[in-house]
Amino acid sequence: MEDQSPKPIRCKAAVCRAAGEPLAIEEIVVDPPRAYEIRIKIVCTTLCHTDITFWQAKVAPVFPRILGHEAYGVVESVGEHVESFSAGDTVVPTLLGQCDHCPSCASEHNNLCTSVPVTLAPGMRRDGTTRFRDAQGNPLHDLLAVSSFSEYTVVDVNQVVKVDPAVPPKIACLLGCGAGTGVGAAWRLAKVEPGSSVAIFGLGSVGLAVAQGAKMCGASKIIGVDLNPDKEKVGKSIFHLHQQVFNFSSPNLKKKNCCFCSIAGKAFGVTDFVNPTQIDKSSVSEVIGEMTGGGVDYSFECVGVPSVMTDAFRSTRTGNGKTIILGLGNQTDLLCVPALELLFGKCVMGSALGGIKPKIDIPILAEKCMSKELELDGLVTHEVGLREINTAFDLLLQGKSLRCIIWMDK
Amino acid sequence: MEDQSPKPIRCKAAVCRAAGEPLAIEEIVVDPPRAYEIRIKIVCTTLCHTDITFWQAKVAPVFPRILGHEAYGVVESVGEHVESFSAGDTVVPTLLGQCDHCPSCASEHNNLCTSVPVTLAPGMRRDGTTRFRDAQGNPLHDLLAVSSFSEYTVVDVNQVVKVDPAVPPKIACLLGCGAGTGVGAAWRLAKVEPGSSVAIFGLGSVGLAVAQGAKMCGASKIIGVDLNPDKEKVGKSIFHLHQQVFNFSSPNLKKKNCCFCSIAGKAFGVTDFVNPTQIDKSSVSEVIGEMTGGGVDYSFECVGVPSVMTDAFRSTRTGNGKTIILGLGNQTDLLCVPALELLFGKCVMGSALGGIKPKIDIPILAEKCMSKELELDGLVTHEVGLREINTAFDLLLQGKSLRCIIWMDK
Repeated sequence: MEDQSPKPIRCKAAVCRAAGEPLAIEEIVVDPPRAYEIRIKIVCTTLCHTDITFWQAKVAPVFPRILGHEAYGVVESVGEHVESFSAGDTVVPTLLGQCDHCPSCASEHNNLCTSVPVTLAPGMRRDGTTRFRDAQGNPLHDLLAVSSFSEYTVVDVNQVVKVDPAVPPKIACLLGCGAGTGVGAAWRLAKVEPGSSVAIFGLGSVGLAVAQGAKMCGASKIIGVDLNPDKEKVGKSIFHLHQQVFNFSSPNLKKKNCCFCSIAGKAFGVTDFVNPTQIDKSSVSEVIGEMTGGGVDYSFECVGVPSVMTDAFRSTRTGNGKTIILGLGNQTDLLCVPALELLFGKCVMGSALGGIKPKIDIPILAEKCMSKELELDGLVTHEVGLREINTAFDLLLQGKSLRCIIWMDK
Repeated sequence: MEDQSPKPIRCKAAVCRAAGEPLAIEEIVVDPPRAYEIRIKIVCTTLCHTDITFWQAKVAPVFPRILGHEAYGVVESVGEHVESFSAGDTVVPTLLGQCDHCPSCASEHNNLCTSVPVTLAPGMRRDGTTRFRDAQGNPLHDLLAVSSFSEYTVVDVNQVVKVDPAVPPKIACLLGCGAGTGVGAAWRLAKVEPGSSVAIFGLGSVGLAVAQGAKMCGASKIIGVDLNPDKEKVGKSIFHLHQQVFNFSSPNLKKKNCCFCSIAGKAFGVTDFVNPTQIDKSSVSEVIGEMTGGGVDYSFECVGVPSVMTDAFRSTRTGNGKTIILGLGNQTDLLCVPALELLFGKCVMGSALGGIKPKIDIPILAEKCMSKELELDGLVTHEVGLREINTAFDLLLQGKSLRCIIWMDK
């Protein structure tokens, strides 16, 4: 009788051999899923700033490594004890697990599952080992136990979310990290209330997703803050930026996807814009205080710079101003705020994935995208094939892209 | 026809002539209440650390000044447009106003009334003037628009809370600031959940009131942290400390009220105690992490020292640990916490008066005291007359008292 159990798969992956070096497309071996694991055929993935952070070796520096953690794919095979998934299911892997049994999963205020806890260290979270080997048989480290820059990957069952096959792959992919984090931060973490005011520091993908989340929650004033003056147009979607603006081209980029072009005309929801280099006050918080009669109700820091975190905090109103930290520059960065201002009713919070519970909230958000309550398509500014993955890095590092979809079959 | 309008009143007050100097009992003049103001005959008042902060000129340093902001009294007369109070009403003045009409008062998440906002600067909040003059006719500054170290004071109608005359004056008095802040911080701000774990840094009046509030909310583990080893017994109420312990005496102190004696036998609710000078780890947060399997759900900082704030933060669990800042040392102190830990689902918050809305919550808390759901009597360690007010300062500065009630008629 033939052995039906999953076998190792040889496939292509983008391998990061050393910090800051271009990724190399290599043939690798992906082991079969062990107990409680799922092997996924990746359909598409994207590059997130968190990948850059690990690529630059700012956090948990181990190489060689397969990066990538925002993706969409199809279940290829499952390991023992996996009952809720089967081959052919369309799924989104996530860096955060959800077991639905531990006290954290049972609490409505906590999305950090404790049964297979999230960690920045490499290795599958139940046994610490990797499922990847290179052509010479040497182990390749994973990233956040997801590693989606590979045609196939193995992910813990707790870290896999089933999504309706009707959801466009690009949208499902975005919800796995950045967009899910941004929308979630407004919706689940800050719980933005109708009619409220919001400031967003940094209009990258996460910041623009916050804008969409805040708009979805009914915020009436959404102030975008960014050093890049073009982001005003992006955030407010006033007019179409032409690709020449950036003087960037690649034969591998789909022609229609020049920088920011694809998002022109999309309403991210930003109503006001502040460029910190073009203000007549000593700080952005002063400007925002004046614009809002005392500060915003919610301030989101999506940059990861300590001084910006402080200014985001100072931009909130006394009484019940909430500051939500979503960015992280360096692992040892400190957030410093005046203690006296806290005593006047302010609050600072943060969360992994914007406080969403992946298995519950990603399907809800996908549905909101399908009904157009949430419009995230505009976040996709570029699309490339796996072989052009280094182009996605260049675009993001140069601030020329929001999300670049990397298609595995191209 | 005789003029029935209120006249200036000559009475005794404890005047602070210069920073850090003993208060002087002087005859002063208290003007009649103006529109929207109430003149109160103070029955009793207490000394709070905030008075010490102003007395030491750490904040808004202006002198001569009448300190005091935690009190209980009876309405003597009311100014124009005051309809909800009349002479004879038993009341608690508070540093925080509540108009019940502004957006902040209408919000359930905000207790910083914006129609007559709280300020640390002296002066009645509607017109910035004082109602006090000394015997020579020179103006005396107020404190937080309350100034209860006087036989009579004038307070804005928004800052006066009516309480049931059946509530013991001492209890009503305590609820006006310190105890209201501590209980409120657990109950209204942190919203401590049943079965949760709590750490309290600093077991002074506010910290012990937090313990009572956390107990009232059903916390199952309440860890007290204090450098003073005697606080373990106070917090846990294991045994009766004798007055000799402190080698302190004053002929003016009521004999039964030796240091901490009056609170022995009262259950403040502290279940565990950590003395930072007697630990075998490098930080209290490490000890607490070990005691709780990863950190407490809620951590309250009631000391006002930046390094303690950071350790309080580090003592909370990832996922949904909340740190509540209640202490303030210096006006320019910064709270600094690792940004990465925030991203793992932590939160830092603060609030004036522990987030309570005075006119709604002080009567509720008074009722809970009457029904013994809340036991705050133990906070009163000493009682003196107005002439001995400097004794109250000595006791608090030497860490020998929790709350010393100052009776106006003694």
